[in-house]
Amino acid sequence: MTYGLDNLPYASVVGKDGRRFAAVRFGDEVFDLSVVDPALFVDGTLDVFLAAGPPTWQRVREEAAALLNSGGLALVPLSDVQPVLGFTIGDYVDFYASEHHAANAGRILRPTTDPLPANWKHMPIGYHGRAGSIVASGTPVVRPNGIRGPGDFGPSARMDFEAELAFVVGVPGSRIAEADADRHIFGVCLLNDWSARDIQAFETVPLGPFLGKSFATSISPWITPLAALEGQRVDGNGLDIDLEVRLNGEVVSRPRFADMHWTYAQMLAHLTSNGAAVRTGDVFASGTVSGPEPGQRGCLLELSWNGTEPLTLSDGSTRTWLEDGDEVTISAGAGEITLGEVRGQVSAG
Amino acid sequence: MTYGLDNLPYASVVGKDGRRFAAVRFGDEVFDLSVVDPALFVDGTLDVFLAAGPPTWQRVREEAAALLNSGGLALVPLSDVQPVLGFTIGDYVDFYASEHHAANAGRILRPTTDPLPANWKHMPIGYHGRAGSIVASGTPVVRPNGIRGPGDFGPSARMDFEAELAFVVGVPGSRIAEADADRHIFGVCLLNDWSARDIQAFETVPLGPFLGKSFATSISPWITPLAALEGQRVDGNGLDIDLEVRLNGEVVSRPRFADMHWTYAQMLAHLTSNGAAVRTGDVFASGTVSGPEPGQRGCLLELSWNGTEPLTLSDGSTRTWLEDGDEVTISAGAGEITLGEVRGQVSAG
Repeated sequence: MTYGLDNLPYASVVGKDGRRFAAVRFGDEVFDLSVVDPALFVDGTLDVFLAAGPPTWQRVREEAAALLNSGGLALVPLSDVQPVLGFTIGDYVDFYASEHHAANAGRILRPTTDPLPANWKHMPIGYHGRAGSIVASGTPVVRPNGIRGPGDFGPSARMDFEAELAFVVGVPGSRIAEADADRHIFGVCLLNDWSARDIQAFETVPLGPFLGKSFATSISPWITPLAALEGQRVDGNGLDIDLEVRLNGEVVSRPRFADMHWTYAQMLAHLTSNGAAVRTGDVFASGTVSGPEPGQRGCLLELSWNGTEPLTLSDGSTRTWLEDGDEVTISAGAGEITLGEVRGQVSAG
Repeated sequence: MTYGLDNLPYASVVGKDGRRFAAVRFGDEVFDLSVVDPALFVDGTLDVFLAAGPPTWQRVREEAAALLNSGGLALVPLSDVQPVLGFTIGDYVDFYASEHHAANAGRILRPTTDPLPANWKHMPIGYHGRAGSIVASGTPVVRPNGIRGPGDFGPSARMDFEAELAFVVGVPGSRIAEADADRHIFGVCLLNDWSARDIQAFETVPLGPFLGKSFATSISPWITPLAALEGQRVDGNGLDIDLEVRLNGEVVSRPRFADMHWTYAQMLAHLTSNGAAVRTGDVFASGTVSGPEPGQRGCLLELSWNGTEPLTLSDGSTRTWLEDGDEVTISAGAGEITLGEVRGQVSAG
């Protein structure tokens, strides 16, 4: 068997002996990257590697493949390791780059105005989220308390998911041109921007989403290098990636990232256009990925049309918003590449 | 002479030999805190010390004072060191806690609605800012480019300052009750939330401030322990602190922190009420400190009433917004305590 490493994801993992190491994943096995170059994977993290940039990213891929193909290197079964967040997160920004999502949200939340905000077609609008609330797939998500309206504090009654892709910055920079985005971005992971719609609705004017989002944001620990997605490019920096959202195991949505209006390169260019610098480990997410069809909507706000059109699941139960015990799994694939999954179960507050 | 350390600020400084050390400041001299306990000031930062909590903060104050009063310890002249950011910043949140500021901003920006947002009296509203854009006092502030309106990209023509206090979290926590805030917050510094009003105005609906703020946020490196401000408490967690804003050396505003509606303890309680955790090094700021009088307004948006009432400076020049070369200095004092200053000069983009 000959190994190629072009299409494979990276993470940190913790082995059965408690040792943390940086790893690349081949199907059901992982390979300890420190064998290639220990100086790039200090303390079992990807931090130094991410900062090193595309030539190093390529060299590590090639050297790892050569080592594997020369034989004699032990692969560890995936089932023997626990993937964890592989890098130190800097700032986290969440965009709003799906026109279908933004227009649906506008129709639902601001029915008396144009569906799209006046600025929406002029730039990829976004906001800063809470970096410290980002957790790895599998971490339980506790239903948040919050102010649901005047004098009404309690557990959110309108808890939602949002299916997104997130981009991990490797090389720092500022005023990054679209054409240079790939020199800075290492890779892609999946992100669930858990949302408490009642808390969000009351707090959001005029400063934007805050506690309705900041209680938890889940990401897939495995990061797929952008270089692995070359074959999936559409219209330049568009990416042909199919997402799938499952609620308690049942598929409730199949959004397509190819339907996004703004590209990751436009997001990074906008984010840094004012002189703001990105740092190694910065994460920016796409916003909810939604398509034109009802079965392509990436959040319950749209799928249940703000609670007015309940979803019926195969067990006969219905959902407008998430209930305690509900598990949401977002997975994605692109051609022969799998982008893994981000999973989380809602627990009572 | 007998030293007391109760009222003195902490920072990291870089000496003439390039060595970085954690320091406490006495007037025109500083003292290397690693002499007290090197394990608390690893790599010349305050990170471990901040996380250690109030009993350690008090012990270090007492032991440093005892060492100083026993004589024989060298103090370094303040002029021989460069203060720098003393800790690793986690998340940064900016509140909007002055009723005078919020109401003025409402009258200016949303003249057809109530001055205060509907949620404003129900909670201290806020948003996440860009932690990676926080810089130490003295760092030049480059005028940002941005989208000033549809199809109109260029340098901000409406650049502003905002005079704020910021609170530095020491001890991590979640769902922190107001009464417990002092167990988590180490201290206070000054913050200038530089703002590009034209960029902010076009981007801000519906996701809030983003690139109009994220180009730079300046803070004073010296952090005054909250414990030093016991004598300045008013109405519980209010703080009687007087701010002064100078533009090119001339005082243009004297806001009073005692006029704030929401307290730092309410801000921290709100921020963590949904289950979000604060980490050591998290920073949250008050929002612009403004008072009821025109001479107490903490930003040019209010001082020039959105550019319609220019300020006349003593040299006869006028200002609606900041010009290249303008230097803004925000300082503060409380009784006999000085909180230092945060200073920045605007340079062309």
